[in-house]
Amino acid sequence: MNRDTLLEQLHTRDRECRLLEKAVALLQWDQETQLPSEGVEERAEQTALLQSIWHGKLTDPQIGRLLTELGADGQTPGGDEKLPPRERDFCRVLRRNYDRAVKLPGDLVRDAARAEGLSQAAWVEARRNNDFASFAPHLTAMIGFARKKAGCWGFQGERTYDGLLDIYEPGLTAAETEALFTPLREGLSALLQKITRASQPETRFLDREYPVEEQARFNRELMEGLGFDTRRGRLDTSVHPFTSSLGFNDIRITTRYFPANVLSSVFSTIHESGHAFYELGLSPELRGSCLAEGASMAVHESQSRLWENVIGRSRPFWEWWLPRLKVHFPEQLLGVTPEAFYRAVNQVRPSLIRVDADEVSYALHIILRFELEKQLFSGSLRVEDLPGAWRRLMKELIGIEPPSDAEGVLQDVHWSMGSFGYFPSYALGNLYGLQFWEKLRRDIPETDALIRAGNLEPFHQWLREKIYSRGCCMEGAGLLAEVTGEKLSVEPFLRYVTEKYAALYGL
Amino acid sequence: MNRDTLLEQLHTRDRECRLLEKAVALLQWDQETQLPSEGVEERAEQTALLQSIWHGKLTDPQIGRLLTELGADGQTPGGDEKLPPRERDFCRVLRRNYDRAVKLPGDLVRDAARAEGLSQAAWVEARRNNDFASFAPHLTAMIGFARKKAGCWGFQGERTYDGLLDIYEPGLTAAETEALFTPLREGLSALLQKITRASQPETRFLDREYPVEEQARFNRELMEGLGFDTRRGRLDTSVHPFTSSLGFNDIRITTRYFPANVLSSVFSTIHESGHAFYELGLSPELRGSCLAEGASMAVHESQSRLWENVIGRSRPFWEWWLPRLKVHFPEQLLGVTPEAFYRAVNQVRPSLIRVDADEVSYALHIILRFELEKQLFSGSLRVEDLPGAWRRLMKELIGIEPPSDAEGVLQDVHWSMGSFGYFPSYALGNLYGLQFWEKLRRDIPETDALIRAGNLEPFHQWLREKIYSRGCCMEGAGLLAEVTGEKLSVEPFLRYVTEKYAALYGL
Repeated sequence: MNRDTLLEQLHTRDRECRLLEKAVALLQWDQETQLPSEGVEERAEQTALLQSIWHGKLTDPQIGRLLTELGADGQTPGGDEKLPPRERDFCRVLRRNYDRAVKLPGDLVRDAARAEGLSQAAWVEARRNNDFASFAPHLTAMIGFARKKAGCWGFQGERTYDGLLDIYEPGLTAAETEALFTPLREGLSALLQKITRASQPETRFLDREYPVEEQARFNRELMEGLGFDTRRGRLDTSVHPFTSSLGFNDIRITTRYFPANVLSSVFSTIHESGHAFYELGLSPELRGSCLAEGASMAVHESQSRLWENVIGRSRPFWEWWLPRLKVHFPEQLLGVTPEAFYRAVNQVRPSLIRVDADEVSYALHIILRFELEKQLFSGSLRVEDLPGAWRRLMKELIGIEPPSDAEGVLQDVHWSMGSFGYFPSYALGNLYGLQFWEKLRRDIPETDALIRAGNLEPFHQWLREKIYSRGCCMEGAGLLAEVTGEKLSVEPFLRYVTEKYAALYGL
Repeated sequence: MNRDTLLEQLHTRDRECRLLEKAVALLQWDQETQLPSEGVEERAEQTALLQSIWHGKLTDPQIGRLLTELGADGQTPGGDEKLPPRERDFCRVLRRNYDRAVKLPGDLVRDAARAEGLSQAAWVEARRNNDFASFAPHLTAMIGFARKKAGCWGFQGERTYDGLLDIYEPGLTAAETEALFTPLREGLSALLQKITRASQPETRFLDREYPVEEQARFNRELMEGLGFDTRRGRLDTSVHPFTSSLGFNDIRITTRYFPANVLSSVFSTIHESGHAFYELGLSPELRGSCLAEGASMAVHESQSRLWENVIGRSRPFWEWWLPRLKVHFPEQLLGVTPEAFYRAVNQVRPSLIRVDADEVSYALHIILRFELEKQLFSGSLRVEDLPGAWRRLMKELIGIEPPSDAEGVLQDVHWSMGSFGYFPSYALGNLYGLQFWEKLRRDIPETDALIRAGNLEPFHQWLREKIYSRGCCMEGAGLLAEVTGEKLSVEPFLRYVTEKYAALYGL
């Protein structure tokens, strides 16, 4: 076969994998947003079957053979150098996905999937009953499966945790992460301590009741005002907000509504819109291929956090949006100025729950999890000692201690699903985000004026061109270097929070 | 392999087919109710891939071998007589589905599917532009594919149309259908002519504006009041109302809302609920197998029409429901009595569009399509002569002529999809429905009092026990004989419409 035929065969196979991936994603999206309560059990069977068909296509040995024939054997650097650059990216990513999948024995995949189901159910119960002990054996099992998987991917012993980080941020090691997190922790802790001693803004107007139906109307307006093309996506309601890519032109976000917390729906919508903009901005040339994904989990998160925090919690943003929010809630917001609203949405307070944390303390919640994961995988921390370690480190990092494990070590779903090495990408997203943002501000000087005028299109254009359109043709570090000329660093983020919150809290 | 192992292997394979069928159904349901407009193209690719995987599983030669080993070779009557009755039903239905699928060559399936896509698109355009000529070549192609398929199934020459009817109503021939439709046509035509000369009820209160959001609230209340368990299903909005079975505990219906036509949403909801009750009433023992389907298309339709018309357009039904509807629309329905409402929802008028037709003329619309389909497949009617034939027969049967082909021969989607032989099941549903209903009334004498009290549970119980729970263990005629002791006949239906409308119109 000649090169073009080989490539065509590979693209056809990859295309089928992506179509199945999207079908699975629809089954899951539907489960979170539409599925009648009694339908859950059969949906699990449908999803499991489609996932196994998908996995079968992804691990078809013919993919490995075709890649090797094209010179992308995963071992010979430059073996594929005669391919056009785009096809080289394609082969590299497909090789990576293929190797990841085929290196896991079928037994392990099946056993781990079954155990994850049990573990998640046990976690739900344990959190409800504040009973870590009942969850501990499941967590031990999850750690065991993660260790085995990392081993299959070539990460043994001391490098086990590197192998888990590598799933989400290809190439990043625990040591490199720690080198970033140490100054991050110092900078944020110092800032948080100063803020804790300063006086807090007025936020009582946020405690009023904001009827849910009216919130939903505002959130639809907000989503479109942010630039979300609703011919290519939609907004729904779910217990936990998420973004789902169901096709190149079908990107769906969700939010959630609480009558006593209008900010929750608003910032979830902005956050998920940020993820959606990434997916909606992929180049049409990548459509339906394995390259039509974000560069890394952290880069994806950089966009949700950029939109939510840097843009969505900025003063000019609320100069534009507060009058619009007031149309929906005139009584609740009577007399509230954009400045007062800006201060209220940026209130910083040590808190127990990661997902509710402010911009200053959020990364400290992540660093806590990173530290504990590292210790769990190095063997220096035993599962039964985890709740105590959580409490101690929480006190040290954020200054408060959870009154219960439900509000402490049991608060996140991730570990119950065996997702270790995932948390760091949330904090790394902040770092990427601010490095991109500093570059964007050099290229587009009048950012504040644009935001104040509700004109976000120049940001979309810049972000699409520099980041979104490229999909995962480059990985995180490579993309960052290409766009900013820099290596991943904490300074831009620390500079941003320090300046913003020093001004807000008069430090 | 022993018998139990053979059966277990068959059940596993059948189960996977059903799970894939439901996954495809979800892709389609989502397309009709949720999908962003730009996502249609990629959804078609997703659906096509899943359908081909599903078809591959359905036609796995191992299914044929296992069935033959169990004595169900499709040719030797009684070959499977040593199996328990339920397994015999299972093998019979699976053999039928398997044979149907494997007898069609892959090329034919692929070519027909591609042509259907083009044909449907051409039909949409043709209807919009009132341009039958542009659709004619597609219709010719659709007829050609249907003829080829019937031939593959062993129905050639004069028996071609029998082969198409057999898809929807197993075993029923065109001659048998005609033997039913001839007296049906005579009875209904005579009744319609008499009604046309009688004076019409007052319906002006239906012309008022009924805001859509309020209609949606009432329809949710109605659905639950009919006995729809919303833990096992849901109600959504789509352009054309439909029922979709996405799982044993996941039956979804849709309706549509027009501000100037409150009856449209209400009767669509009742009609689709009738279909849903059938699916929701399947025995848990049939769950996830090929037996978990209605006995035939006509029997399924008998239930939607029974609920919509016999129950939903009855006097006692509106004695219970009108006060509830008035809570939502007090001004629009000021001073309207249940009797006046009952008369208004049963207005009979010759009309052009099948889906808007009343109980008396509906079956005449079907008979028109049946006559034309028969002639198209016997070769006595050419496609280019179809619009004229439609107009003449419409005049003859209903007494009016469509001013345009868009309101005539182009009104239904069915032919553009190659669904020939489908229409008759709508009218046969009326016949089945009234035969079941007469038996039900013998078993439950106080039907009117129950409906008047909003107590529909005894109907649900009876219908579940006699019809729904049995799935397709029996086919239409067999089920009817089992439940009523009768053969399919027009008398109960003609008796019902004649009595009801003679009283309504003072004939």
